[in-house]
Amino acid sequence: MKKEMEMAWILCQAEDGQEISLRGSIHALRPMGEITFLILRRGQSFVQCVWEEGCKVLTEEEQEDGADAAKGRRTTEGQTKDQKALREEMAVEITGIVRKEPRAIHGAELRVSALRILSRPAEPMPLCINKGRVKASLETRLNLRSVTLRNPLEAARFRIQEGLVRGFRDYLHGQGFTEVHTPKLIAKGAEGGANIFHLQYFGQQAELAQSPQFYKQALVGVYDRVFEVGPVFRAEKHNTVRHLNEYVSMDLEMGYIDGFEDVMEMETGALKAMFRLLEEEYDRELSALGVEVPQIGRIPRIRFDEAKELAAQLSGRPVSRTGDLGPEEEAVLGRYFREQMGSDFVFVTHYPSRKRPFYAMDDPKDPRVTLSFDLLFRGLEVTTGGQRIHDYGRMMQKLEDRGMDPEELSSYLMIFRCGMPPHGGLGIGLERLTMKLLGEDNVREASLYPRDVKRLTP
Amino acid sequence: MKKEMEMAWILCQAEDGQEISLRGSIHALRPMGEITFLILRRGQSFVQCVWEEGCKVLTEEEQEDGADAAKGRRTTEGQTKDQKALREEMAVEITGIVRKEPRAIHGAELRVSALRILSRPAEPMPLCINKGRVKASLETRLNLRSVTLRNPLEAARFRIQEGLVRGFRDYLHGQGFTEVHTPKLIAKGAEGGANIFHLQYFGQQAELAQSPQFYKQALVGVYDRVFEVGPVFRAEKHNTVRHLNEYVSMDLEMGYIDGFEDVMEMETGALKAMFRLLEEEYDRELSALGVEVPQIGRIPRIRFDEAKELAAQLSGRPVSRTGDLGPEEEAVLGRYFREQMGSDFVFVTHYPSRKRPFYAMDDPKDPRVTLSFDLLFRGLEVTTGGQRIHDYGRMMQKLEDRGMDPEELSSYLMIFRCGMPPHGGLGIGLERLTMKLLGEDNVREASLYPRDVKRLTP
Repeated sequence: MKKEMEMAWILCQAEDGQEISLRGSIHALRPMGEITFLILRRGQSFVQCVWEEGCKVLTEEEQEDGADAAKGRRTTEGQTKDQKALREEMAVEITGIVRKEPRAIHGAELRVSALRILSRPAEPMPLCINKGRVKASLETRLNLRSVTLRNPLEAARFRIQEGLVRGFRDYLHGQGFTEVHTPKLIAKGAEGGANIFHLQYFGQQAELAQSPQFYKQALVGVYDRVFEVGPVFRAEKHNTVRHLNEYVSMDLEMGYIDGFEDVMEMETGALKAMFRLLEEEYDRELSALGVEVPQIGRIPRIRFDEAKELAAQLSGRPVSRTGDLGPEEEAVLGRYFREQMGSDFVFVTHYPSRKRPFYAMDDPKDPRVTLSFDLLFRGLEVTTGGQRIHDYGRMMQKLEDRGMDPEELSSYLMIFRCGMPPHGGLGIGLERLTMKLLGEDNVREASLYPRDVKRLTP
Repeated sequence: MKKEMEMAWILCQAEDGQEISLRGSIHALRPMGEITFLILRRGQSFVQCVWEEGCKVLTEEEQEDGADAAKGRRTTEGQTKDQKALREEMAVEITGIVRKEPRAIHGAELRVSALRILSRPAEPMPLCINKGRVKASLETRLNLRSVTLRNPLEAARFRIQEGLVRGFRDYLHGQGFTEVHTPKLIAKGAEGGANIFHLQYFGQQAELAQSPQFYKQALVGVYDRVFEVGPVFRAEKHNTVRHLNEYVSMDLEMGYIDGFEDVMEMETGALKAMFRLLEEEYDRELSALGVEVPQIGRIPRIRFDEAKELAAQLSGRPVSRTGDLGPEEEAVLGRYFREQMGSDFVFVTHYPSRKRPFYAMDDPKDPRVTLSFDLLFRGLEVTTGGQRIHDYGRMMQKLEDRGMDPEELSSYLMIFRCGMPPHGGLGIGLERLTMKLLGEDNVREASLYPRDVKRLTP
């Protein structure tokens, strides 16, 4: 929340002795004999209020009896109750006198003169959210996510996530990108592959988009540079700490590149801007969670085959002959580049063609590898990107080589038939980026309402 | 695109006689005897280039033979061809001399000294995109959308759409809102109602979210003010000029309101900011399309029952007893408020309870109506909003009155059990807002890749 609008800011700006009114939820109630400390919460802002015995509480009943009277505050018409009427998670309006108090958060507190109840809970919270970190299993915290998030440390994660998205968009806007919104309901067979959710669409077979790939490429022919931040859907059966079945993908695609290196440069610039924005505007959340924002210089690069060798060497195992990096290989590489080069990031380039999608551009010097990259962040892949085929003839050749049916891709192929500039792009998994930034070990910690093989609620 | 990065800006900043290089697509080729005018397009920027007979074209073959030589420009190694080798929609790099020329767009043109082909189309465009408005039916334009959009007037619409979204986000950010990302895959029965797409989710029944309603309400308890811009899905069988089966919803939800009027004020502020941003940064697109941005003062308000009466009176018909406004009623009201009060917008308030969802708050003065509103823009509903029930007891009563099963809503009901502040919010249909702003009469014109009952491609 913008600081100037926050309760704490209003409190700090007020003069000692000034009367102000604040609205918020009762985050915590701490009775201390004749006085009660009441922590008021609104959004991510907290204010300490002091309740002295004998002070009146205006209840809802009175408000309904006489709404006008209630607005007059401190009215004693009807029945009033003392502080025993208060409950944590009540929504209240407090009128009080500001007192500078060095021992209070923000150096000031509010001495309650009147309290009006706006709304009340029916039951106590099912878990404790107002004493530091929430002490419950991930499963419990997720089951109760909507209320678990009322804990400021749980909530802070998604404030930081907001900052990442804002930084991504703002940077790309400054780089001449246009934001687009592409459909998530697509015709069957459009992009192909396993891991697809299917559904019926007015008698047609439809799928949920696993990426905006085809659309963002098409729109490079229109806007030259485009980006989209939106949900993507993967019906992966893996139930791991790294996989979600629905996640937010930050996609970009750009035209007239000289090579996939241009795309890596753009990502480097975007990440720098995103982290800068966090430092500038999300310092409260960063320090609450003890998050250290990575410093990015030039991100080191290593070819895929060399990365495989290095990972094997570092772990003392033979080189695995898979066409991708396994989680352990990514982790060991992450540690290596952290320790040896002081970098939390490393680009792994030239992934094998057989493991990349048909639209990836093969390296003319060695068609067994592609002009592509992944970005590892603290040992986890957070981005896949690369240059794409732009020539219609080559695209058709690639489809033939792979035994794919051009008929099923006709509206995608049209853009190449009509001419496309050299182009490339990438997709960043927002939750994975957030997870690694926060130092979490489960991607579910970085999704407001995660979806996995077993979880479709809340 | 940011002006400082655009081709035309680079051209205009260059000195007369200076050599520059630009990359873009050949938007149009106009042979005029010994010279050929070539319009270069990159994104939404256009530059006039002049090709004189005898000037060399460096083809792709040469580039592959000697990539280094190609970078040296004007190299005449290998075979070169004349301007007959050029085709519209080729991607090229042009090096040339800047000449101030009052008759050219931007007052300058580029005299080609060398042209390098970066990519070539396999076929001519299936429809003409480089001579003013595209002359083809909506159906044809949509079938060929990815290339139709290369027409600058078609493309301009979605630049304006980008501006609306940016303006919405920027304004809300400034008002203390947090941006959230909520799941689109939800458990069966969560929100209920007809018009839902169903799918299988690892053996469970799932649905596509028709709005982020429950989630944004829950997150008011966390962040106080939240917004989301994302896809929503409606399996409506209506195939009209106003309906899409997937659209972008701009949602907000805010806590501690005094009434639904606060939500209307927030929307008014957001719309003003959105239109201001368009005027400041999207003037090119606005003037290309001849779009007049509405001036918003205080938006007039009328109660639903009075609106029904007024619509009947204006059209000389008896008052229709439906619980909603029909398209003709909306249109006639739109015209009335335009002519009588000079407003393109009108809030219609206090919709009947029986036609609003269960979570809408009934008016305590008359429970047959809700504390809710729609916003009509130029005679079309573009927003639905209102105050929500926040009290657990009232919510349970409402569910009982409607014969709904609380069991199916348990994770939603938990937020009220644990206490929720008074709150309200709204959803704006991005495509409808864009459509009316552009003066289009079909919402498909305002969706990059529209989805309707019959259309799932491209």
